[in-house]
Amino acid sequence: MVSVTDLGIDPAAGFTSVDEANATAFERLDAADPWVVDVAPARDVLPGYRDNLVLTSGAPMAWPDYTGGQREALIGGALFEGLADSRDDAIAGFDSGRIEVGACQDHAAVGSLAGIYTASMPVFVVENRTHGNRGFCNFYEGKEPRRLNYGCYDEGVHERLLHVNTVLAPVVGEAIRRRGGIALKPLIARALRMGDEVHSRNAAASILFNREIMPAILDMCDDRVPGVRETMLHLAENDYFFLRLSMAAAKASADAMVVPGSTLISAMAFSCRGFAVKLAGLGDTWFEGPPPIHQGKLFAGHTEDEITWMGGESPITETVGLGGFAQACALSLQEYQGGSPEVMIERNLEMYSITHGENSTYRIPQFGFRGTPTGIDARKVLQTGVLPVMDVGLAGRDGGQIGAGVIRAPRECFADALAEHDRRFGAR
Amino acid sequence: MVSVTDLGIDPAAGFTSVDEANATAFERLDAADPWVVDVAPARDVLPGYRDNLVLTSGAPMAWPDYTGGQREALIGGALFEGLADSRDDAIAGFDSGRIEVGACQDHAAVGSLAGIYTASMPVFVVENRTHGNRGFCNFYEGKEPRRLNYGCYDEGVHERLLHVNTVLAPVVGEAIRRRGGIALKPLIARALRMGDEVHSRNAAASILFNREIMPAILDMCDDRVPGVRETMLHLAENDYFFLRLSMAAAKASADAMVVPGSTLISAMAFSCRGFAVKLAGLGDTWFEGPPPIHQGKLFAGHTEDEITWMGGESPITETVGLGGFAQACALSLQEYQGGSPEVMIERNLEMYSITHGENSTYRIPQFGFRGTPTGIDARKVLQTGVLPVMDVGLAGRDGGQIGAGVIRAPRECFADALAEHDRRFGAR
Repeated sequence: MVSVTDLGIDPAAGFTSVDEANATAFERLDAADPWVVDVAPARDVLPGYRDNLVLTSGAPMAWPDYTGGQREALIGGALFEGLADSRDDAIAGFDSGRIEVGACQDHAAVGSLAGIYTASMPVFVVENRTHGNRGFCNFYEGKEPRRLNYGCYDEGVHERLLHVNTVLAPVVGEAIRRRGGIALKPLIARALRMGDEVHSRNAAASILFNREIMPAILDMCDDRVPGVRETMLHLAENDYFFLRLSMAAAKASADAMVVPGSTLISAMAFSCRGFAVKLAGLGDTWFEGPPPIHQGKLFAGHTEDEITWMGGESPITETVGLGGFAQACALSLQEYQGGSPEVMIERNLEMYSITHGENSTYRIPQFGFRGTPTGIDARKVLQTGVLPVMDVGLAGRDGGQIGAGVIRAPRECFADALAEHDRRFGAR
Repeated sequence: MVSVTDLGIDPAAGFTSVDEANATAFERLDAADPWVVDVAPARDVLPGYRDNLVLTSGAPMAWPDYTGGQREALIGGALFEGLADSRDDAIAGFDSGRIEVGACQDHAAVGSLAGIYTASMPVFVVENRTHGNRGFCNFYEGKEPRRLNYGCYDEGVHERLLHVNTVLAPVVGEAIRRRGGIALKPLIARALRMGDEVHSRNAAASILFNREIMPAILDMCDDRVPGVRETMLHLAENDYFFLRLSMAAAKASADAMVVPGSTLISAMAFSCRGFAVKLAGLGDTWFEGPPPIHQGKLFAGHTEDEITWMGGESPITETVGLGGFAQACALSLQEYQGGSPEVMIERNLEMYSITHGENSTYRIPQFGFRGTPTGIDARKVLQTGVLPVMDVGLAGRDGGQIGAGVIRAPRECFADALAEHDRRFGAR
């Protein structure tokens, strides 16, 4: 564990009470103003990036601790980036340290599922215009269930990733730059009125984003920029395109929550080993527990025992009051991830019992435009026993997506985080 | 009233029971498959159109019976089309019969609010591919509250209508033709999952439609077709654009319901004089009652006593199981037209008590994807006393839109329709 003082957070400085710290952390989160301003290769924009680095989801671990699909995904990343010319070579590279493994969130990025980043991969650059920090996320690979971030690497995966690098990302990046950046918060707020919760459902947000870049796209058509048509047709067919923007926006927002002594959660993520949370008041320290508890719906032909954990940091969306915390906006998800409207509404309401406040921008039509439950308070999680709920995709043992569902964060993370909080800041 | 036999419907032919007739009418409605295939001037495509004809909403009336905003709208239409060179000249023209007034629905069209059609106005041509009939609707004038269909005519209204005729409609029409037509039913079904009920809320359907024409638009960009950029920017900003497509789709669907003896409603509309309905089993006969009962929310600065009736045929959407009959899909409407989520859900559920069946395509996430209540049975309206609910825009005494709300059809229309039904087909 990295100590708070190592991170430049002085527990003595300005800390008076947990309640005050939480109020400040909530305000900072609520005031965040994420704009996507650019698309650029990870190596050029992620802080501390090195060419031999492959990033993955969850609290940082040593290479040998990555197993199953997450290990496969890391190997696939090394191969895709040309850091190794065979699987064995990649393994040897990781073993020797020639190829390094890193944690996405140590580089201001968030990873979808296994969340593999390599140097050449284009990322959305999202700027929090209120606080000046940046968050990053790479691109959705497309609808095909076999994807690198689901632990698969083959010719098809390679081609689709290359297509992102060479066609999609350059066009989308140019469109974003020509627009002078796009404010994501109003777009997300609007998508919440259109059946999205911008975690497992992004159908509205994706086309709203297309609409935002449209004027630039039309100019680029006039200017004969290559790849425009291909990109727009691809975007039109990919309802999950926006997820990566929602994740980067959430990361840029949640990272602004650092307030000594706060018990609000500033990140939730998991690896093949377990689920972990960060506290806004304890800087970059992760508190790890067992894997999440799940309730899912599997695609035809798959069975429960195939479900495997290979990482996931999209719960950054729940951290800022979206996803499972806005589930009542997206009742259509019942079809994709199971459950009923009644259960989804009940679950969403339950989250108000563990959050600090109500979002002033993200609102739920179902609840008369009440703000989404925002700012998970670890204290309330322990007091109520209500565990944070998240909408996620489910990965299969043999790689690929096999379903979707709802997960709950394990209680242990919150208990450990609060124990450490007590040690640093005194009894609450 | 036009008799059933005049319309070629022989009450004796094939009629066995009301229940059977209703089952057939419902099936025909449910099986309708509306595609928008073209955009063309009213004069070229509306059956029976004449150059001196101005169409308006509601059961047909003689010129002197049109009063207030609806009369103003007719005069504005005549001026816009160049059928008269002054207001007095227009009135004289209508008085003498040189300019003719007609009812939209007698020409397979439906009018939004006052619903003015003139010869040069472009209309969406919607083909019901199951039954071969066509429905039509003209274009949305834009967000400005002063619109011809809200009883206003001035320089601004003129310019916006001209812009539709010369820029928007040609581009949208070419895009539709290049796409070989666009199936509207799947698009509407999708919009219902995205917070629309495609009557008073069309935010999702409008951008879904933009997405459908996108490939053609990109080609047209390449081909340097003029007006493409202007049109796409206009469409991107007009959340109500799709309403006219939803209305034309509904008209093409409802018109296929003609089944002798059926007590299902095949049209609902109103004029400045009153509300009227048609029965699927009584052809083109309208049964008229008093104006609708309303409950609205007014834009700032307006008062209840300003509300005026100047026509409306958008309730064709409710006739096919959309709008008020799918209100639980569009809870965001609470902000625009008043009410609460609870009331909207309750109202939507209530409609199941007066409908024949559940739509097999249009489904409501809020109700676990139950099909929308579809096929209003006049018998059930009388038995239960539950009046059909519709989401509409509200017009002001001095013209222009002043709010939005929910209206209920008056009981009288249904009673009269059933009395006539009894006379023709015997006691039910």
